[in-house]
Amino acid sequence: MKDYKGYIFDMDGVVYRGNTLIPGAVETLKSLKRIGKRLVFVSNNSTRARDDYAERIREMGLPIEMEEVIPATYATARFLADNYAEKRIFVVGALGLIKELLRAELMLVDTPEKADILVTGSDPAINYQKLSQATLLLLNGKLWVTTNTDKLYPAEDRIIPGTGAVVGALQYITGRAPDVVIGKPSRHIMEQALKALGVGREDCLMVGDIIESDVLAGKNAGIDTALVLTGVTSREDVEKSEIKPDYVLNSIKELEM
Amino acid sequence: MKDYKGYIFDMDGVVYRGNTLIPGAVETLKSLKRIGKRLVFVSNNSTRARDDYAERIREMGLPIEMEEVIPATYATARFLADNYAEKRIFVVGALGLIKELLRAELMLVDTPEKADILVTGSDPAINYQKLSQATLLLLNGKLWVTTNTDKLYPAEDRIIPGTGAVVGALQYITGRAPDVVIGKPSRHIMEQALKALGVGREDCLMVGDIIESDVLAGKNAGIDTALVLTGVTSREDVEKSEIKPDYVLNSIKELEM
Repeated sequence: MKDYKGYIFDMDGVVYRGNTLIPGAVETLKSLKRIGKRLVFVSNNSTRARDDYAERIREMGLPIEMEEVIPATYATARFLADNYAEKRIFVVGALGLIKELLRAELMLVDTPEKADILVTGSDPAINYQKLSQATLLLLNGKLWVTTNTDKLYPAEDRIIPGTGAVVGALQYITGRAPDVVIGKPSRHIMEQALKALGVGREDCLMVGDIIESDVLAGKNAGIDTALVLTGVTSREDVEKSEIKPDYVLNSIKELEM
Repeated sequence: MKDYKGYIFDMDGVVYRGNTLIPGAVETLKSLKRIGKRLVFVSNNSTRARDDYAERIREMGLPIEMEEVIPATYATARFLADNYAEKRIFVVGALGLIKELLRAELMLVDTPEKADILVTGSDPAINYQKLSQATLLLLNGKLWVTTNTDKLYPAEDRIIPGTGAVVGALQYITGRAPDVVIGKPSRHIMEQALKALGVGREDCLMVGDIIESDVLAGKNAGIDTALVLTGVTSREDVEKSEIKPDYVLNSIKELEM
């Protein structure tokens, strides 16, 4: 394996699975840090702000700083601050997303008539009025930025709708697709991760467990990719897939140096 | 024009537009009734029970009985009573739909684990929990019946999401499409209309203003069709369309005898 300077890690299926850490993950991450490697963790989470997300990871037993995690909430806020700082934003999404948008000093409005941009994320408080307001924005041709388009999410005891519930509803009725997707497999969240790492993309490895999300995100951003088999993908799946990672690892542990 | 015994009318764009009656509509309908023609009115409305829907139409100035209207709420209830009377049903929909399902003596449950069938309609009280519950039913392979799949609905002052908001959300995240669509352009609502008319399909004319909904519904049910130009479709649209109605009328008035 090439001697990378920076690593972008997906979390679920790589570092932990459910609420349990992958054996050896903490030691591997510590060992990489000890020899000066730069690490950052990306997640399509669209409901938690960066600090709350890091806190939740720490509770699982993984020592991690806020600056090391890039949830889709934060990546979306940074993308908007970089590209549309002066625009007025109408949000259909959770408090964690709103928190990040406000931290980025973006201008949020709660009257859709005044908005230039629709931002969507998974919204535990989704309702008919919000969908109606978002529909009007889309029919009026406003820009649509979404944290991600994830369909389903494995919660503790059941599978629950992801941001795709909001995206699917709006896409079906308006005939429009999101103009910008921030989360994996989009390159946008990867660009924010690269910025946080401060490492050139040629010196960086993306490590994940889902081909169509993590590996594709790496490829979309021009970054080498490693697929770990501790998540939802088997070696057989990799062989069948047209998208090929640069490396296939049994677990994150194989990165230990 | 052939001498039909029964007429199935779409309402919005045919009999009224917005809240205003089409000039001559009441007289034409009265004249048809006077000479013994059978009439019934179909609508993809998925939020009002039959009586409430008829009442709303009467308020516009059109004398109409409950038995003459077939909203999608009622047609859905009849379809289920005819085919799945013993099954337990989980509803994501408005009170008007629930009312019709209860009137048809169907068994409704509010715990999705106990349900055999998911029924969807436009739901002013749609929320994340309902979407999650419906998602579980669909992932468990339960039958999915929807009142309709209409994308948008012209409300008094703005365009609002139709049943398609619920259908689109569930379809996107589960990858499933509804197993049964009741409303136009499906033949199911037409079959209920034919039953109410008591007239053979060869003696019946479907009159509507939307090619992809009304005319297609007639064709799907093997019924002759007339398109009226008082709604959303122009003569140019008809010429461009691959779906051809049997007749094109300037207005419902041309049916007067």
